[in-house]
Amino acid sequence: MKQKSAEILAIGTELLMGNTINTNAAYLARGLAQNGINVYHQEVVGDNPQRLMDSLTQAFTRSDIVITTGGLGPTYDDLSKETIASYFGRKLVMDEASLEHIKQHFATIGRVMTDNNRKQAMMPEGCTIFPNPNGTAPGCAIEKDGKVAFMLPGPPREMKPMFEHYVIPYLLKDSDTRLCSRMIRFFGIGESGLETKLHDLMVSSTNPTLAPYAKSGEVMLRITVRVGREEDPEPLFAPMIEKIEEAAGEFIYGIDIENLQTAAVNRLKETGKTAATAESCTGGYVSKRLTEVPGASEVFQCGVCTYSNEMKEQLLQVSHETLSQYGAVSSETAKEMAAGVRRLSKADIGVATTGIAGPQGGTEEKPVGLVYVAVDSENYSEVLELHIPSRGDDAREYIRYIASSHALHLIWKAAGAGKK
Amino acid sequence: MKQKSAEILAIGTELLMGNTINTNAAYLARGLAQNGINVYHQEVVGDNPQRLMDSLTQAFTRSDIVITTGGLGPTYDDLSKETIASYFGRKLVMDEASLEHIKQHFATIGRVMTDNNRKQAMMPEGCTIFPNPNGTAPGCAIEKDGKVAFMLPGPPREMKPMFEHYVIPYLLKDSDTRLCSRMIRFFGIGESGLETKLHDLMVSSTNPTLAPYAKSGEVMLRITVRVGREEDPEPLFAPMIEKIEEAAGEFIYGIDIENLQTAAVNRLKETGKTAATAESCTGGYVSKRLTEVPGASEVFQCGVCTYSNEMKEQLLQVSHETLSQYGAVSSETAKEMAAGVRRLSKADIGVATTGIAGPQGGTEEKPVGLVYVAVDSENYSEVLELHIPSRGDDAREYIRYIASSHALHLIWKAAGAGKK
Repeated sequence: MKQKSAEILAIGTELLMGNTINTNAAYLARGLAQNGINVYHQEVVGDNPQRLMDSLTQAFTRSDIVITTGGLGPTYDDLSKETIASYFGRKLVMDEASLEHIKQHFATIGRVMTDNNRKQAMMPEGCTIFPNPNGTAPGCAIEKDGKVAFMLPGPPREMKPMFEHYVIPYLLKDSDTRLCSRMIRFFGIGESGLETKLHDLMVSSTNPTLAPYAKSGEVMLRITVRVGREEDPEPLFAPMIEKIEEAAGEFIYGIDIENLQTAAVNRLKETGKTAATAESCTGGYVSKRLTEVPGASEVFQCGVCTYSNEMKEQLLQVSHETLSQYGAVSSETAKEMAAGVRRLSKADIGVATTGIAGPQGGTEEKPVGLVYVAVDSENYSEVLELHIPSRGDDAREYIRYIASSHALHLIWKAAGAGKK
Repeated sequence: MKQKSAEILAIGTELLMGNTINTNAAYLARGLAQNGINVYHQEVVGDNPQRLMDSLTQAFTRSDIVITTGGLGPTYDDLSKETIASYFGRKLVMDEASLEHIKQHFATIGRVMTDNNRKQAMMPEGCTIFPNPNGTAPGCAIEKDGKVAFMLPGPPREMKPMFEHYVIPYLLKDSDTRLCSRMIRFFGIGESGLETKLHDLMVSSTNPTLAPYAKSGEVMLRITVRVGREEDPEPLFAPMIEKIEEAAGEFIYGIDIENLQTAAVNRLKETGKTAATAESCTGGYVSKRLTEVPGASEVFQCGVCTYSNEMKEQLLQVSHETLSQYGAVSSETAKEMAAGVRRLSKADIGVATTGIAGPQGGTEEKPVGLVYVAVDSENYSEVLELHIPSRGDDAREYIRYIASSHALHLIWKAAGAGKK
């Protein structure tokens, strides 16, 4: 069977002007990929019938499926339905069921239905209508000569359920394969370093395929397999994951897990351990990220941000001698902070950061980007000296983020120590 | 002068697959619009030379400027430079300065430079090179017959400074007018509420123009004027700002200021006051945001995250009676936390948060989204009861973010109390 491919065409001046970020495209692309439909183009056009028509025509020269989002509103500049219908040689007709739904919607929220809202119930002749329980504009599919356009509303909370409940079943009604993916996450190795280790595997594999990408100090590797509609993908994944673990297992912190903080919290829960944080240069970033994870309260005791030396001494009992001999930014201080917050909170694991986040405050001996991260626990203690690149406008954010990632990674390591 | 228009062409399989949201496009579109350059199309293609060539060719039939992001990485599938150079009939040559920079980058971070990184220093013949202080891949502009392509790296922290420092000046080098903007920032009023107050002003103004944006619980109003290249814009800004202050001054927390945390830190510095934070549901978000601001160490004493009741009692001396009578999520607890951290740190201002960030933990009486935020200081104390909407996948993040915004706003208010 010919492999289907789709394009995503977002319509809206607010996207073109950059006032709204096009999160819909990523959502749709993921959903299509998971269902074995390749996406080779995404596009954004404004509320302009001629440019929309041009882009639609162009898209259908490349793909059989075009999914549009937005442009279904009641205002006079929302003309996408007219434009798309005319591409298919159809006119708009009133859909009484949709009109009834819109009337009810206004009755429910207690507002008067203005006349332009009737326009939202005008649908292309012969289309398949998708009801919209979360808003007023219905969506639809319109098909001709093997080409199909799906028109979906722009607001994500209306678009997403419509995609899941109507578009996916519509698309899969005669497919015989699907794509499945797993994501391996690495910490402590760069993209090119990982590629060097996995190069032979990457170029020789076709099913599964491997795709690495790097983001904010981490590298991810997506493994994608194509299987039959009812086929279990696991027999294709397992040997590949084994090979990757052989080549670079020491850097893997999780598979199909969202991020470092989730890995850390999950492992704390699994091992029944608790953690506490003592932060200087990261100023709360570590605890903020840990507590992003729902249920973190079960494993996170407390965090303290001790910016001043006084607070380091008073709250964490870092010794005055250590601070005066080695300074606040030192491995000795980091170690004492980690031990101190562990003692204060009675947590199993204490983690600490101290460093120079910049842009001011660096010296030749202790430059901006120098950060010490320490972990203290019964089975595992470690202190890292990091030299985080500190160039660019958001160097401070980057240094703090990377330092907090190392702290989360150390919690993860300490939580797993002694684990068989 | 002919009005210039540009297209944004993002390159990357991770965008096409939906693993990364294309935030770059919105950033670039805003930046171009602010400089008087219209954007009529945005597009995303994968790391595929043929499709990239097709899209590039298509884009140049519509626009004179194409800005690409991504595809400049070291790995074998990053072929955009080759493709774009070949569109312009150029070949790639080694740029020694860029190579030197890449070598230094690896030396600084203490990693071995692998051979594939040399590829990042291969640049199209005759292009204008944009150095990348924040990463390894330089960008460039390549021009021919009135068409110009800008190639920028994909990671936002590399792309944004390059756009600002090189692309914008390049684009404006022969323009005779320029656009200047000022941004007024509001807290405590919604977009439609602000529009109602400013409606007449907004529809009647053409130079300046007014454009409101809402984002994450705040509203911003951009005032834009078009002036001659050497003309002072201030005489156009001043009377407009005065009118806006008359209509909605009570909600303004800053002009041309980056965010609430910067406003809070600046005002603390101005008034010589210090602040400390005590966080429950926000788990460090308030201190993380405060310490994002360079120099926060001058005014930020310490922060504590007390997730458990024990830590609230032990560290902040919240009374056992208050916790058992009113519960941890109550205005009484919030007040005692704020007073407690102020006492602990000897800061002038203590701020505290306690609430239900969800998704679990809500009850009928205390639902997810209920948050108390308190501030305690000599001249100004207040406690807020917030009911933050909690629908959607990222409700936890939203609730924590909005609560931390209120806490920062209260620090700002308390720091200004008694100020003439």
